[in-house]
Amino acid sequence: MKYYVGIDLGGTNIVAGVVDEEYNIIAKASTKTNCPRPEKEIADDMAKMAVQAVENANLTLDDIEWIGIGTPGIANSSTGIIEYSNNLGFKDTPMVKYITEAIGRDDTPVFIENDANAAAYGEYVAGAAKGAKNAVCITLGTGVGGGIIIDGKIYAGSNFAGAEIGHTVIEVDGAQCSCGRKGCFEAYSSATGLIRMTREAIELFPDSEMSKMAQERGKVTARTSFDCMRAGDKHAKDVVDKYIKYLAAGITNTINIFQPDVLCIGGGVCNEGDPLLLPVKALVKEEVYTRNSEKNCEIVIAKLGNDAGIIGAAFLGRANQK
Amino acid sequence: MKYYVGIDLGGTNIVAGVVDEEYNIIAKASTKTNCPRPEKEIADDMAKMAVQAVENANLTLDDIEWIGIGTPGIANSSTGIIEYSNNLGFKDTPMVKYITEAIGRDDTPVFIENDANAAAYGEYVAGAAKGAKNAVCITLGTGVGGGIIIDGKIYAGSNFAGAEIGHTVIEVDGAQCSCGRKGCFEAYSSATGLIRMTREAIELFPDSEMSKMAQERGKVTARTSFDCMRAGDKHAKDVVDKYIKYLAAGITNTINIFQPDVLCIGGGVCNEGDPLLLPVKALVKEEVYTRNSEKNCEIVIAKLGNDAGIIGAAFLGRANQK
Repeated sequence: MKYYVGIDLGGTNIVAGVVDEEYNIIAKASTKTNCPRPEKEIADDMAKMAVQAVENANLTLDDIEWIGIGTPGIANSSTGIIEYSNNLGFKDTPMVKYITEAIGRDDTPVFIENDANAAAYGEYVAGAAKGAKNAVCITLGTGVGGGIIIDGKIYAGSNFAGAEIGHTVIEVDGAQCSCGRKGCFEAYSSATGLIRMTREAIELFPDSEMSKMAQERGKVTARTSFDCMRAGDKHAKDVVDKYIKYLAAGITNTINIFQPDVLCIGGGVCNEGDPLLLPVKALVKEEVYTRNSEKNCEIVIAKLGNDAGIIGAAFLGRANQK
Repeated sequence: MKYYVGIDLGGTNIVAGVVDEEYNIIAKASTKTNCPRPEKEIADDMAKMAVQAVENANLTLDDIEWIGIGTPGIANSSTGIIEYSNNLGFKDTPMVKYITEAIGRDDTPVFIENDANAAAYGEYVAGAAKGAKNAVCITLGTGVGGGIIIDGKIYAGSNFAGAEIGHTVIEVDGAQCSCGRKGCFEAYSSATGLIRMTREAIELFPDSEMSKMAQERGKVTARTSFDCMRAGDKHAKDVVDKYIKYLAAGITNTINIFQPDVLCIGGGVCNEGDPLLLPVKALVKEEVYTRNSEKNCEIVIAKLGNDAGIIGAAFLGRANQK
């Protein structure tokens, strides 16, 4: 059996996992990222977590084929440098060099990749996009993340900053996006976008079920509109319908461009299941450019959850060998 | 010197060209497509034009490495079948087989590709995107066509129907598009979209310079608004500004997804030159996700015009060998 280490570097946590060749995470180790602090300290903690995860798996570094890292921001997979990460405060951070030094082993290759790309690669090697030739993954979380797999390889763009599908405008002059543009896919289809639309509806309809639930629970969440829709609130259904309409528009756009075998959607909002998915699929089917063709992209739900990033990172050596 | 034949199959004309290894078209032959008529007749005429172009170049078929074809619709480059073409009325047309039979030579390979993809490949091998690793070409014509080159290869999607960048919604519930959706990039940024916006402005402002020019010339064209803007018409400038705003939105979307080395725009509207390009570039620079990075995609104007399709088709054998 071969073993690989995947490290998911996040703004909040550093998680390292040992993954076997059958894509099982057999051990993990994690610590807080504690941002902001010097990049070298963060790298040292990442290396420690890698070593500890290997120990937790009752293995030694000799058993590890390589180490892969998924990081927020622009990760230059050729040079091993994190060129920029807003979340981590990194600028031209030589992460591969740091990890290699901290591990103290020149013979263990280290790879880096953007975290959304690594997660998409995880779904491609072991999850919902397994067996696809071309796949696009869209994650509906705080933002809308994108990861593109073309011909079995991660496509990150010439400057390693691509796949920002969340930052494509689907409504010119629309809702303000965190990226500075107005009307981005992310501004509508992220959990944050759904919460914004729910809040707007509550303001318009203070007597609605959504308004009551928000008061009872003390907050508006991405679940408020779906829960209230199920309780029969018409205004909540309008919010959900609007959310679904914009999500379907962004997904259809993505399929019209890539026509991948599989379009994989993940993130917390997907836990809503069929009440979200069935109408999205129906709208996409009506709108997609190839609606009259038999060969259409399959829309699937991500399988690996938060493990996608670790598994994808763990197999980055394969992504780079292709 | 090596020679290749490229055939540009259009709804109106069939044009065959002999292209040398330095990307020069050294001879052409053309005839009307005369749609609709039986697909076999069209294929026979395509073969005839290929042979005639070779004769016009003072060569024989022995001198030709291969024949490439750019066609509207869904061209399966693996099977050689045009699976569907609305313009030509084709459905599962075995074009490579037809051409091979009509030429009567088993030893001359024949390749097919979607016409927009072939034109993008032409710009990639010999035009404005030459030397790029990743490039996206957008053509602003009757519609908005897209062609994607990734790592030197044409990306057509798993079902050969991808790269429909023109059919991505940039304004949910916006202007009606020919594809059935509302608010597509094409509905705003094609010449047709510009004409629509010009007409709408003329209706609102019947005393405008645009209105007078349309009456004098007997029609509204994609040039009307630009010409009247130069003549000082404020309303015409508003139309041009709106056109530029939507075009920049679609281009920025495309860069945020692909982050290619080069984004190449072509088509008649590009003849407007700097009054179009400079403000588009400025808006993209303000909005693109990597606006703070030094490594940004270059926006260039297509160089090859209508020859891009012929040259790209002529080098399809190289696209398929990679």
